[in-house]
Amino acid sequence: RALTIGLIPGDGIGKEVIPAGRRVLEALPASLGLKFDFIDLKAGWETFEQTGVALPEETVQTLSSCNGGLFGAVSSPTTAVKGYSSPIVALRKRLALYANVRPVKSVATAAKPIDMVIVRENTEDLYVKEEKTYDTPEGKVAEAIKRISERASTNIATIAGEIALRRQKIRASGAPSIHKGPLVTVTHKSNVLSQTDGLFRTAAKAALADPRFSSVAVEEQIVDSMVYKLFRQPEAYDVIVAPNLYGDILSDGAAALVGSLGLVPSANVGKTFALGEPCHGSAPDIQGQGISNPIATIRSAALMLEFLDEEEAAAKIYAAVDANLEEGKLLSPDLGGTAKTEEVVQDILRRL
Amino acid sequence: RALTIGLIPGDGIGKEVIPAGRRVLEALPASLGLKFDFIDLKAGWETFEQTGVALPEETVQTLSSCNGGLFGAVSSPTTAVKGYSSPIVALRKRLALYANVRPVKSVATAAKPIDMVIVRENTEDLYVKEEKTYDTPEGKVAEAIKRISERASTNIATIAGEIALRRQKIRASGAPSIHKGPLVTVTHKSNVLSQTDGLFRTAAKAALADPRFSSVAVEEQIVDSMVYKLFRQPEAYDVIVAPNLYGDILSDGAAALVGSLGLVPSANVGKTFALGEPCHGSAPDIQGQGISNPIATIRSAALMLEFLDEEEAAAKIYAAVDANLEEGKLLSPDLGGTAKTEEVVQDILRRL
Ligand SMILES: CC(C)[C@H](C(=O)O)[C@@H](O)C(=O)O
Ligand SMILES: CC(C)[C@H](C(=O)O)[C@@H](O)C(=O)O
Repeated sequence: RALTIGLIPGDGIGKEVIPAGRRVLEALPASLGLKFDFIDLKAGWETFEQTGVALPEETVQTLSSCNGGLFGAVSSPTTAVKGYSSPIVALRKRLALYANVRPVKSVATAAKPIDMVIVRENTEDLYVKEEKTYDTPEGKVAEAIKRISERASTNIATIAGEIALRRQKIRASGAPSIHKGPLVTVTHKSNVLSQTDGLFRTAAKAALADPRFSSVAVEEQIVDSMVYKLFRQPEAYDVIVAPNLYGDILSDGAAALVGSLGLVPSANVGKTFALGEPCHGSAPDIQGQGISNPIATIRSAALMLEFLDEEEAAAKIYAAVDANLEEGKLLSPDLGGTAKTEEVVQDILRRL
Repeated sequence: RALTIGLIPGDGIGKEVIPAGRRVLEALPASLGLKFDFIDLKAGWETFEQTGVALPEETVQTLSSCNGGLFGAVSSPTTAVKGYSSPIVALRKRLALYANVRPVKSVATAAKPIDMVIVRENTEDLYVKEEKTYDTPEGKVAEAIKRISERASTNIATIAGEIALRRQKIRASGAPSIHKGPLVTVTHKSNVLSQTDGLFRTAAKAALADPRFSSVAVEEQIVDSMVYKLFRQPEAYDVIVAPNLYGDILSDGAAALVGSLGLVPSANVGKTFALGEPCHGSAPDIQGQGISNPIATIRSAALMLEFLDEEEAAAKIYAAVDANLEEGKLLSPDLGGTAKTEEVVQDILRRL
């Protein structure tokens, strides 16, 4: 099978980790029968400075004709810059990548094992970015719309249910696990936002009540107490489904529990396309030193393959990464090691 | 000085902890010259079931004539119930309690000492609860308004700056501390919400640029990476200022770091009034067993006194609680102990 993969390194360490993802894909054993074509694409702050647009139309068009992609990270300004808008937020919407899937897993030897996946709605909530500002006698006032639809909530809960079943199947095949049965936890704040988060809650629970999810236990939790429990009892979570912003916040919290954002992958998933994206940012503080952790991107490449139904290839990559981490000899500085990006990549390549 | 204090136990363990707060206030040494009058007030789910309103007008009126108050916790339904609306959210707005102050502090003997205070804007953001739902061919869609004003953002940053200075003054007087200088960290997500969170950020930084805060270091952090860093490096935070919802989430996260929500107090602060409120909820699972942790409420009573300018009385209560925790003999089950609420209260009373 030939797969065309768009590569968007973006800014900062995005440029160091995306090549690592590419090399791992290229190094997959020929026996898997995969052939990759890579296309380099532009987006981000540097692109904005050069061209006046952060996400060139060509990037969107080319990417939409690819099977999958890898997105590094971009540096966003914290204040509004005229004409600049986050390219990853735009891409998610333009390509209808409605689910953001973020598995967070500790190594098997961890003192406190964690194995959860956060399934984040990826197109709406406050990310619709409909904002306005007006003047009042008491100063400026700004408003943003938080939009929640029954359809997107149903879709995201459905994919969460499917992921719970798939995880259960892998466990049933003998993989060691901290979980007994499949569980989906629905996150919301409907005690305050009874209509928007109330709709998310109702639609998610209705979707998960479908007979094909009859083996999946469904729980719900208010987002603030979820963050509390995430820190206290992370082993309790299997699949978490959340509206966009809560999913954003929860996945960073979960990443802290496994030691580094540099370990946590994500995939932006549409009906027929998946875009892998490490959860870390462009990290200007360590850029150019050759010490960024390539694992989040390498795992994102595997996750992308999973959603392109190449589970065997994905499993190979995960195993090579896990073996690197479990041995613990070649770790990047964010994990307390001294290995360079290149050494970590080499170590993972030889384990493939 | 005579202080009239309104007491709103609410539901669940609110009924067990508010009396503890009252007893500690009553037991303060006469030498402090404080005289308390307590007025029992109703609000919450049980009140709603009995009377059809969750926050009786009488409660609001009486409370607004008090010097301060203590609010326990209420049980909120997770789905919209006609006529029901969270009484604490309403009270914050009705009484213009614009700041929610949440100190999170580990005991001095903790392995990883933490000493931060989260200063949460308490009247706007998504808590304006302006929501609507409409039908589309693809199902229901709900929208909520997130509103951020320059005025409220300026006010909350100002109180955060004042708290940073006050904390620094206490440290300078010789109290042991993990912090060098005063620091305020401004939380936002202006990389996505450039207008609303952008306004919060700009107004907060402008307020903190006032010469009287010249000794206060000011940093900013995006909310998702803030949750990450909160887990990884909590000792780095002194004062955190945040819009309403992020403050809600961050304070639960911080509470997890000190072992239990049962330890974390808050005060809802207005110009001339303060309402103490434990950060925990009504905890129906442990209600009626006499094992709830009274410390969050007792500390909330102290925090209320601080904002009523009774710092000496507040310090007495904090010291008694700290002594109980540092000895570690009479701890409630949430802290791994076996003490009943009553035993913890007795222990704190004898240390006053
Ligand atoms: C960079 C930012 C716009 C983005 C988001 O908020 O989605 C990031 O935090 C993420 O989690 O992918
Ligand atoms: C009960 C709920 C409405 C409340 C809030 O969200 O403010 C609570 O979580 C809190 O933190 O005081």
